[in-house]
Amino acid sequence: MLSLDDILQSRERIRPYIVKTPLIRLAMLDDYLGCEVYVKAECMQTIGAFKLRGAMNKALSLSREELSRGLVAASSGNHGRGVAYAAKLLGTKATIIMPYTATQLKKDAVRALGADIVECDNAERFQVAARVCEELGATMVPPFNDEAVMAGQGTIGCEVLEQCPEIDRLVLPVAGGGLIGGVSAAVKALAPTVRVCGAEPDARPRYAKSLAAGHPVTVENGTTVADALAALTPGELCFPVVQKNVDEVVPVSDAYTLSAMKLLLTEGKILAEPSSCVPLGAVLQGALDVKRGEKVCFVLSGGNVALEQLDVLRGVALPPLKA
Amino acid sequence: MLSLDDILQSRERIRPYIVKTPLIRLAMLDDYLGCEVYVKAECMQTIGAFKLRGAMNKALSLSREELSRGLVAASSGNHGRGVAYAAKLLGTKATIIMPYTATQLKKDAVRALGADIVECDNAERFQVAARVCEELGATMVPPFNDEAVMAGQGTIGCEVLEQCPEIDRLVLPVAGGGLIGGVSAAVKALAPTVRVCGAEPDARPRYAKSLAAGHPVTVENGTTVADALAALTPGELCFPVVQKNVDEVVPVSDAYTLSAMKLLLTEGKILAEPSSCVPLGAVLQGALDVKRGEKVCFVLSGGNVALEQLDVLRGVALPPLKA
Repeated sequence: MLSLDDILQSRERIRPYIVKTPLIRLAMLDDYLGCEVYVKAECMQTIGAFKLRGAMNKALSLSREELSRGLVAASSGNHGRGVAYAAKLLGTKATIIMPYTATQLKKDAVRALGADIVECDNAERFQVAARVCEELGATMVPPFNDEAVMAGQGTIGCEVLEQCPEIDRLVLPVAGGGLIGGVSAAVKALAPTVRVCGAEPDARPRYAKSLAAGHPVTVENGTTVADALAALTPGELCFPVVQKNVDEVVPVSDAYTLSAMKLLLTEGKILAEPSSCVPLGAVLQGALDVKRGEKVCFVLSGGNVALEQLDVLRGVALPPLKA
Repeated sequence: MLSLDDILQSRERIRPYIVKTPLIRLAMLDDYLGCEVYVKAECMQTIGAFKLRGAMNKALSLSREELSRGLVAASSGNHGRGVAYAAKLLGTKATIIMPYTATQLKKDAVRALGADIVECDNAERFQVAARVCEELGATMVPPFNDEAVMAGQGTIGCEVLEQCPEIDRLVLPVAGGGLIGGVSAAVKALAPTVRVCGAEPDARPRYAKSLAAGHPVTVENGTTVADALAALTPGELCFPVVQKNVDEVVPVSDAYTLSAMKLLLTEGKILAEPSSCVPLGAVLQGALDVKRGEKVCFVLSGGNVALEQLDVLRGVALPPLKA
């Protein structure tokens, strides 16, 4: 199982290639959320999301010969961009498998990094990725179900504890479990009394259900604004790590997630993706028992939002003050 | 003239009431601006703008008896909100003079802080404010032309030097000169080799013209997106401080300011007012000779923008990379 050593080694490995993102105290949000608000701004990471950490650690774990044969990933979002960027930095080739339905903007972003794109039906993307991988002799970089990827994401936990040693709790968005798996493993090994909580859209409660069942459960593909939290089943390597280290995972409705996104932007002055706002939404919804004076760090996993996507916030009201 | 001592005393005075705002390294912007980018996020200050610092220092400089007779300010923007907030925190009354044309949103924000509002024609606001002040026996809090106000704004300079002692240059938005006057006085006294530059909309180049003339000059009321930079004449107390301490003030066109605002939001993930983006616009326009590796701190003076105001960014292109 993923160990603290894996994460610490990953940290040294990726250090020259990633940004140590700021941990920002957002005092203006305290009265809305009822705790002392900190955010770990991975939206300010290179490529605008944390995904570069895991992709970079995976790439740097390969032999020179393996690396030279290239990287493959199936993703139309931040993971694909992270793998493309890692390949570019390390002078190798990336091939990103994207659904026909991916927007031109997303294709352009990946192509601008020098990656090849293979388009296919969304349902076939993992089979296509496996075939491309075999043809090229390249290495697949999974979005979450991989120990090197998890170890890379876990470096966020080390940074938060360094930047604010007195933090009481971290809250992270959850999908396959790569981010929260890595971060919770780091935090619980370094500071066992710090709480680590997850938040997922209630339309895809894969971790709430799986933790209750005691094994990975697949949920239906419900619709949610948190489009980056796509996985329907916990990663089989991620699940035991989360089960061991995470205090709780709570489902959050889109209404609270959008209210959180508006709050973060207009009062906190930070732009984050809807998926990154699910943890703040969890507190607004009353799903986590945060307390006045408790130092809570919300991990803002990414900020790749087009201005047009902000239209969805127009009719959304700010949450009431808890003061 | 404003001294470092005034600013250091102001800092102790206002410390319990204001936020030490984060200094954020925005590495993602380096290749667009051609330098190492830092921002001092006063948009994350209480009330969403730096104006609270000066208003609070002015209020705390009064005797208990003076304070009890209340504060008056003529402003429909951040200064009015700052004075209203300071009065609320200190348990006294604020009366804010606003033009009939002020939006309901701005009136509501000031009223929610418990302040009284007196409406009048925009052209008469200073006369009305003076009359109200006399009637109430209250104290006028000028938006910039006041040493206590300047001293309060100057505390930003002390914080930046503490948060990043190796900074090479600060760039600030300029209107009447209260912010840049206070900050430049602090910075040049504490670290004389650090450059302090100003940026103002080219539609209202009051400082560029006044510095060239050697005395305060009044400019025409040109139209600009930088609506918070309203003063047409440098403050007479501010001008000599700026003349002594500021390296240069450059005029910036709205097109570069808007491009900077879009860059800051979509790539930097921070929401700031158009007026706060003029300094970034100055660099995009090529008006400041920043260098690769030079650590430049842009002071983001405020972030009070309604979502609807972001529409103006739709047709705006991101600046080209300088890499």
